[in-house]
Amino acid sequence: MKHNFGAGPCILPQEVFKEASEAVLDFNNTGLSILEISHRSKEFEAVIVEAERLVRELLNVPLNYSILFLQGGASQQFAMLPMNLLPEGGKAAYLDTGVWASKAAKEAKNIGSVEIVASSSDKNYNYIPKGYAIPSDAAYFHYTSNNTIYGTEVFEVPATTVPIAVDMSSDIFSRDIDIRDFDLIYAGAQKNMGPAGLTLVIVKDEILGKTGRTIPTIFDYQPHIKAGSMYNTPAVFSIYVAMLNLRWLKAKGGVAVIEQENIIKARTLYDEIDRNPFFKGTAEVEDRSRMNVTFVMDSPELEAEFLALAKERDLIGIKGHRSVGGFRASIYNALSITSINALVDAMREFEDKHK
Amino acid sequence: MKHNFGAGPCILPQEVFKEASEAVLDFNNTGLSILEISHRSKEFEAVIVEAERLVRELLNVPLNYSILFLQGGASQQFAMLPMNLLPEGGKAAYLDTGVWASKAAKEAKNIGSVEIVASSSDKNYNYIPKGYAIPSDAAYFHYTSNNTIYGTEVFEVPATTVPIAVDMSSDIFSRDIDIRDFDLIYAGAQKNMGPAGLTLVIVKDEILGKTGRTIPTIFDYQPHIKAGSMYNTPAVFSIYVAMLNLRWLKAKGGVAVIEQENIIKARTLYDEIDRNPFFKGTAEVEDRSRMNVTFVMDSPELEAEFLALAKERDLIGIKGHRSVGGFRASIYNALSITSINALVDAMREFEDKHK
Repeated sequence: MKHNFGAGPCILPQEVFKEASEAVLDFNNTGLSILEISHRSKEFEAVIVEAERLVRELLNVPLNYSILFLQGGASQQFAMLPMNLLPEGGKAAYLDTGVWASKAAKEAKNIGSVEIVASSSDKNYNYIPKGYAIPSDAAYFHYTSNNTIYGTEVFEVPATTVPIAVDMSSDIFSRDIDIRDFDLIYAGAQKNMGPAGLTLVIVKDEILGKTGRTIPTIFDYQPHIKAGSMYNTPAVFSIYVAMLNLRWLKAKGGVAVIEQENIIKARTLYDEIDRNPFFKGTAEVEDRSRMNVTFVMDSPELEAEFLALAKERDLIGIKGHRSVGGFRASIYNALSITSINALVDAMREFEDKHK
Repeated sequence: MKHNFGAGPCILPQEVFKEASEAVLDFNNTGLSILEISHRSKEFEAVIVEAERLVRELLNVPLNYSILFLQGGASQQFAMLPMNLLPEGGKAAYLDTGVWASKAAKEAKNIGSVEIVASSSDKNYNYIPKGYAIPSDAAYFHYTSNNTIYGTEVFEVPATTVPIAVDMSSDIFSRDIDIRDFDLIYAGAQKNMGPAGLTLVIVKDEILGKTGRTIPTIFDYQPHIKAGSMYNTPAVFSIYVAMLNLRWLKAKGGVAVIEQENIIKARTLYDEIDRNPFFKGTAEVEDRSRMNVTFVMDSPELEAEFLALAKERDLIGIKGHRSVGGFRASIYNALSITSINALVDAMREFEDKHK
């Protein structure tokens, strides 16, 4: 058994792979592959309607929010979001918690005025800034709820009177949130939702259409809402797999249940990092992510040796991002506690060998 | 056996479905699904490199052209193309051969000045305009090489001194073209290339970076070129399936070989339409598409009856687009002559019954 700790695209449930594999040969006994059916067929209409219904149900999305299945990843949202929310002459507020947060702000700066309310770049983004002020005249406040590279996560929604837009690419569906705290949420699907090539957007309808800008139709959320994510041909297969994955999550008991599992998985791994003298967590303890666990060792030699051991033990994808170094274990929803234990066992084995 | 005449997403080779299905369970004996591998893994790097190499080989793409695998479909290119090619204060020339061509022009109008050089809207787009003049001061000339809805196709590249940009979504890889006739080609993948959720762009490098516009990074071709289509997470699975499909095409003998098959397939069907008194082609004979064959009958009652017979005979997706009515048989690369013959047989059966 391979233990896939990859940061994304990442592990999804085996049941989902199995069902998706069958649908590539014969989708729902249609005699056709999911890859060759029309997006306008009643069979696919049922898929996209169920996918939307599952998102609404699992996250308890109120009816005054629309749910969109788009393409282009979170990076495309970095540009689409200010196109849709930042009025001519207006200002947006951004929190800088890493490379992705910073890229989001940079794209908004191409479109309008941007104020960075706080940044943790002084410590290589190993913490979440707190106690900053969000200007009340901002069109919106943007932050990244989980920072995959640095292993930090924002657990408390910042208090502000301005609309909040969040990049939840790497922690959506991993824990309970109150959608009403947010005005726009977007997420590249390739962590806890589905395969790469799909982007989820959840947006409060009333915040749209107010910028006075001419937006290319394809980059305007409203035509996509009007067309039920079928303004043009959607990413049929990715939406289908996301639907299967959300079905799996619902069958498990939903977001509240997976959150408890995620808390236990993260605690198990962080406990070992804190106990084992060979390993050291890189993120501030209170801001530690439950999705991406980053840790280092005392020397590049030790790290190379542990990486070799991890490989032997079928622990895949734990090399850290180059800007942090060391290791990053991404422990998304579909990764089981068995895989966490396998990693912890390897860490103990390493300790035993070297002490 | 189902005969899938759907307009897109459409039939792909059964071998491709089989291999894709296996890779969803275990990709290349990695023990991992193609849906969970990192886009930065050496295994996926090999896929995207091979996909690019196959496009270059099959279409004989010179080295001064870049090949991109993007997301968002042709509709996204309607906006990206003028963002990248239409200078501030410049003008673009568009040929109007249908709804999609017209949408492309509309998006360009949001960005700059557009001149429609000719339109066939006077006859519900059932022909390709000819003999029009392309202004020599246009930044580029845009047309749609195949019009799926109306069953028309442009076989001769218009003579002009300005750069040519073409939407080849529904006929790329179906016939030999000389890439050097074009400056930019784009195509939604979901006809002859692969699954929905992938867009191919082939662009002559020297035409880029000349507009003086600030383009959001994700909508600028140049960062994608620089990053080898990995500026952000690409549509991993769609690229993989496209690669399998292009391998299949190469193994068949390439574009010149499939073109001969496509000519025979189209001729077989058009010959029956012209012979059988119950059916009538809608497109001008000289502009008839080899990919989408549109035809009607004398009354809605006859059409309903033939549609029912087609359904009985497992002929899928032949209902015409509402703006033309009647029938549309999309006969893309992967559709075999066996399926064409099954349709022709049904047409003869209908004739025998009614004469």
